[in-house]
Order: sequence, then C-alpha cells, then structure tokens
Amino acid sequence: MAQVRGKRPPHGEPVLDKAFALLRAFTPDRAELNLTELSARTGIPLSTTRRLAVRLVALGALEHTADGRYAIGVGLWEIASLAPRGLGLRASALPYMEDLYEVTHQHVLLAVPDDAEAVLVERISGRTAVDVLYHVGGRLPLRATGVGLVLLANAESETQEGVLAQVSGAERIGLRRRLASARREGAVVFRPGPPWPVVSVAAPIHGAGGSVVAALSVIVPEPTRQNPRNLVAAVRLAARRISRDMQS
Amino acid sequence: MAQVRGKRPPHGEPVLDKAFALLRAFTPDRAELNLTELSARTGIPLSTTRRLAVRLVALGALEHTADGRYAIGVGLWEIASLAPRGLGLRASALPYMEDLYEVTHQHVLLAVPDDAEAVLVERISGRTAVDVLYHVGGRLPLRATGVGLVLLANAESETQEGVLAQVSGAERIGLRRRLASARREGAVVFRPGPPWPVVSVAAPIHGAGGSVVAALSVIVPEPTRQNPRNLVAAVRLAARRISRDMQS
Repeated sequence: MAQVRGKRPPHGEPVLDKAFALLRAFTPDRAELNLTELSARTGIPLSTTRRLAVRLVALGALEHTADGRYAIGVGLWEIASLAPRGLGLRASALPYMEDLYEVTHQHVLLAVPDDAEAVLVERISGRTAVDVLYHVGGRLPLRATGVGLVLLANAESETQEGVLAQVSGAERIGLRRRLASARREGAVVFRPGPPWPVVSVAAPIHGAGGSVVAALSVIVPEPTRQNPRNLVAAVRLAARRISRDMQS
Repeated sequence: MAQVRGKRPPHGEPVLDKAFALLRAFTPDRAELNLTELSARTGIPLSTTRRLAVRLVALGALEHTADGRYAIGVGLWEIASLAPRGLGLRASALPYMEDLYEVTHQHVLLAVPDDAEAVLVERISGRTAVDVLYHVGGRLPLRATGVGLVLLANAESETQEGVLAQVSGAERIGLRRRLASARREGAVVFRPGPPWPVVSVAAPIHGAGGSVVAALSVIVPEPTRQNPRNLVAAVRLAARRISRDMQS
C-alpha cells in the first residue's frame, strides 16, 4: 500500500507499530537483544530503534540487562498481569491446578484460545516430570495437544474448518471424530504418539454465558500409574470448579 | 514544558506515551473499561483514545470483552512472558516454590525489585490459606513485607536511604537494625503485626555475579504449626537452589 509522506497512513500508527515490532522481536531463546540485533530483526533503522528503545525503557516495557543489552521489562509484566484471560483466569484456576498437581506430580496446563492457536497461560510442572515443549506465554497448536483439541472442539465452525483444511483424507476424518467425541464427552484423552510417551487428559472451562473460555489438562507419562478414567474425572471436576468460581 | 506544534517534542514519543497511558489505565479492580472511561482516566481525547484502542486491539495489547468494553489482551501477556525478571525467573523458581508450598500449604511469594518497590512475580496460595493482599503483577512496599525487606537490605544505599527517610525516630532505627540483620542472617523473619496474624520468612535469590535479583518467602498464620527456625532453613535452601539453577 502506498504511503503519502507526511500524512498519517490510512491504517496503523507507525510509531506504535514499530514499538510493538521491537517488543515482538524477543523470543524464548533470544530473550536479550542488543540494538543492532533489534534493528536487524525488525528492519527498523538503527537510529529509530535506539530512540524507541530509550522510550520503551522509560515506560518500563524494556529494561537493560547487566551486559548492556535489552530485555522485556517488568513494567510490561505488570500491565500484562491485568489481562483477564491471563492472570485473571489463572488466579481462579491455580488452587485447583495445585490440587491436580499434588495427585500427579507431572504437568498441569491451562490454555486460552487466540486466533487458530492456544496460548499457554499457566503450567505447573514437577522437577522430575517428563519433558514437555510448551512454556507459559507460548503458543500451542490446536490439533496436536489435549488443551488445543478441547478448545478447537468448542471453537466457531469457521476456526474448526480452517484447522480441518490443514489436514486431509483419513487424518481429517479422524480429527472430526475426535472433535465430536470431545464435545460429547466433555473431555479429551490425547496421545501424541512417538517420540512423546505421554497422555494428555483435558477438559473445558466455561465462562459466564456458558461459552468455553479456556482448557485445563494434565500430562502424565505412559504407561502411567494413574487410571486414565480417574484422571478424566479429576480434570473434569477441577475444570467445573474453576468455571463455577469464575462465574461467581 | 512548552511543546512546539508540529515538531517532535524533546522528550517522549507522544503516540507511544499515550498508548502506554491507556494500557496503564487498567487496574486490578478496573480490569475492563469502555472508551469513555479510558479517555477520562488518561485525559486523552475520546477520538484519539478510540483510534489508539483500535490499533492496540490489532496489536493484541487490548481485546474486546463480551460486553463491548476493553481489557488487556493475551497478546501483551505473550510478550511480557519473555521478561527475564518475570516468567524467566519464575520458571527457575516454580519447582522449588512447589516444594515449599507442599510443606506449608499457605503462601509462597517471589518478588523482584523495581525502583523503590517490589513487584510480585509469583504467588502460590492454598485455597484455605490466610488472606494476603498482594496479587501477581502487583507492587509491594519494601519496608513492610518479608520479600521487600530482603530486597531493601541488598539494594543500593541510595534506595535504602530513600526508604529510611520515609520513617523517623525509633522506627528508622528499628528498620536499620532489621536491614543489618537481614544481611547478616541471609534471611528475614517479619511479623507485620495486627490486624495480620501472620509471619513471613524470606530469603534472597542471587543472580550471576552474586547480586540479589529477587526474594522468596513463605507466609504462614501465627501461631504456626511449623517451627520458624525450620522455615528459615527451608526458605534459604530453596532460594539457594533457585540461585544455583539460574546461574547454570
């Protein structure tokens, strides 16, 4: 789209968009970046990068690290903590997640839908638990995780068809069947298969009005000491209690 | 400071500053706001508020609530999750916080210093635990909390003198003594006194280079079943293990 110099472009706020591009340049494996890296990763000229970085530090959104690089600041964490679908949901869920954790001592996950993915809002993990790839604040695919399947099963049909269109043939039929079962049972038992010797048991959390706003799961190694039936009951019960707490 | 119309002001980026003013208008008890409220709380004209809100929604920093108001978005939570002093620290600390929680089933707190206050990065609380006022992402006073005293005892002398200047006479002498003891013992046992029948046991977490980057505490009701001596040992041990994990 052509942009007329000196006029505000029809869409977007250039300074704000650039500032968020800088903030989004950080990733879990590159949580600290210097100005040159920030400029290279965003395509924003170095002088503009420097000017905006200075301002973002003043606003608490960035902070200096011990070695003079930049990292996301605690000030942004402070603002983000007010996201109702972040820490708000988490505050309701955490006590029940603790209970589930004490039963399994493995992983307990809490995720919310965002576009055609899920964002992991909370994870409690034992020190001796099996490895899982997902970190808090990170994104999970809807069709390849327990919490994702719960959210997908309860998503708008447009989102469902979009994800179904990504797979074909037998896989698509299997996925449709899985989603129908998830809606019918009010729970998902998902085995990702090799190389992940785990089983994920997930259930939906309902907000005011009854819509599904989040999903809760436990992930345990397989073969497991726990009876999967009991896990389904425990996860569904916890999810129902969180739903009730959130609505009250 | 006078601002020349049409020129960039000497300090600040007006659009960016306004966008963050809008984000900072949300508070724990007002986590959802409409445009009129956002405009009133920030002093930003309604038309500008609307324009920036639309853009912040597109960037994921805000989102619409079910009833048409605005709330902090999960997109901001996603970025903020990369704050090394937020979730990075939290990821190292959480397994050890779980251990402490299983011993006490009350509150386990993790806080980092920010200016002359502390920001609560994590809190694990039992459903039956005594009430505490602090929420994750919120701020705690340095001189009236266990974690705060640990951070203050290890802060730069400028910060210490600033806080000491807020109190006078016997209280200042008491606070100086407390800080000296915190440094000597490597731990704080703090009783806020009525109406809070609790005791907080806190210890410092050291980053690379040995500086104190965070503080860990347990808060239990008083009289307590646990021997405070044992709690001090448990909290110091957990804080030392987190320090070691973060440095490796």
